[in-house]
Amino acid sequence: MIPGFHGVRESLVHGPGWIKEVWIAEGKKPARTEGIVRIAEELKIPIRLRSGSELSKLLPGIAHQGIVAVAEEFTYSDVDHLMDISFKKKGRGLLIAADHITDEGNLGSLIRTAAFFGVHGLILPKKRSAAVSAQVLKRSSGTYVHLPIARVVNLRRSLDLLKSKGFWIIGASGESRESIYQFDWKRDLVLVFGNEQRGLTRSVRDCCDQLVGIPASGHVESLNVGVAGGVILSEIFRQREALEGAHRE
Amino acid sequence: MIPGFHGVRESLVHGPGWIKEVWIAEGKKPARTEGIVRIAEELKIPIRLRSGSELSKLLPGIAHQGIVAVAEEFTYSDVDHLMDISFKKKGRGLLIAADHITDEGNLGSLIRTAAFFGVHGLILPKKRSAAVSAQVLKRSSGTYVHLPIARVVNLRRSLDLLKSKGFWIIGASGESRESIYQFDWKRDLVLVFGNEQRGLTRSVRDCCDQLVGIPASGHVESLNVGVAGGVILSEIFRQREALEGAHRE
Repeated sequence: MIPGFHGVRESLVHGPGWIKEVWIAEGKKPARTEGIVRIAEELKIPIRLRSGSELSKLLPGIAHQGIVAVAEEFTYSDVDHLMDISFKKKGRGLLIAADHITDEGNLGSLIRTAAFFGVHGLILPKKRSAAVSAQVLKRSSGTYVHLPIARVVNLRRSLDLLKSKGFWIIGASGESRESIYQFDWKRDLVLVFGNEQRGLTRSVRDCCDQLVGIPASGHVESLNVGVAGGVILSEIFRQREALEGAHRE
Repeated sequence: MIPGFHGVRESLVHGPGWIKEVWIAEGKKPARTEGIVRIAEELKIPIRLRSGSELSKLLPGIAHQGIVAVAEEFTYSDVDHLMDISFKKKGRGLLIAADHITDEGNLGSLIRTAAFFGVHGLILPKKRSAAVSAQVLKRSSGTYVHLPIARVVNLRRSLDLLKSKGFWIIGASGESRESIYQFDWKRDLVLVFGNEQRGLTRSVRDCCDQLVGIPASGHVESLNVGVAGGVILSEIFRQREALEGAHRE
């Protein structure tokens, strides 16, 4: 529940993906609510009239100013569900895991890219990781609806489980000599991205069946994690899908 | 010239790539400057002592508080220079042009990605385009030093010139059916990215020899321009360089 003119307006402008409904106290002067109503209508977010006392009961002691945005809670999925989806594409299962990505912009960008390339799900650790916040949803441009996301207590343990079910665990690492262009991506796999500064944690790195890198042209040490995600997912997509059509090489 | 404690500190923290020197008035109390001096030293930015009257003469009427950061102006290149660099890699020349990218974060991200993949230069229009600001340099993580950037009055005219010199003009467009994975990238070319919302301008689109797209898996309309840049440049790099080594397909 986001109370007050300012909060409601900000939510509508910056994180509309979150907002399920806007509640306005009956009899509110239209002048102050007009702008907000217009934005909500444009975004096709329903507006409901409530009595002022109802709002006050829901938000005891809070100066709600007779206006409240009702935010939808992001619903996380679980690893079992992600596995089920992947298994429907046997031999082409594709999950990604973010080994402690802390920047919300990067996480949002990775979600958007993953949705574009048809990834079956994303696994995030609960601790020391960006969660799916309003900012993340905003940066994902609403694409999160296409990507089930699971949060896990222990990423290493989840990767071990997936491994035991037949998934290859592939870590993206700037240091690896195995080129993403040479690696054979036609298998069920979990692609793991590391933290922006520190890369993969030792525990996750130890569990990887293979580390892969993007062979650089020499100048720059590493790409932004969102861009690196796009580059690797594109290569996976190319090998799996694009090559099935005409092929000129 | 960036005057005052706050301005100097912000510049050092957020856009150190810009800052050439920090000038401090002689006799300034060390307490207030100490933190700034420490940051500058860590960044290996020289600190010079000046007289207070000298600073006041350089910044007439401005409350400089006895501290000034001297910002380096970004030096643009020109299209002739970009052509010269490309011609050294005859048949593998690679320039990119941004057809009115307005978001500074996107431009910075594109610069970083272009530097990573060894692009020979970037062409920006002077008007209605993000310029190379401190924010852009920051987002590029300092990689702009590897990428000559030219600004032009009329992008269409520059593309026509490049075309007349033998460059292929290739536009990135979500609507194109020609897949980046099928297109043969082994030629001298200028890859043009459109505006984040409106795509390529009509004038630039008309001048393109080919439009190419990233075949999507269906869910999402388009990638962020920085990520799209990474995906396409990666495919160019793969076809030109990575395939020259072992090749498992």
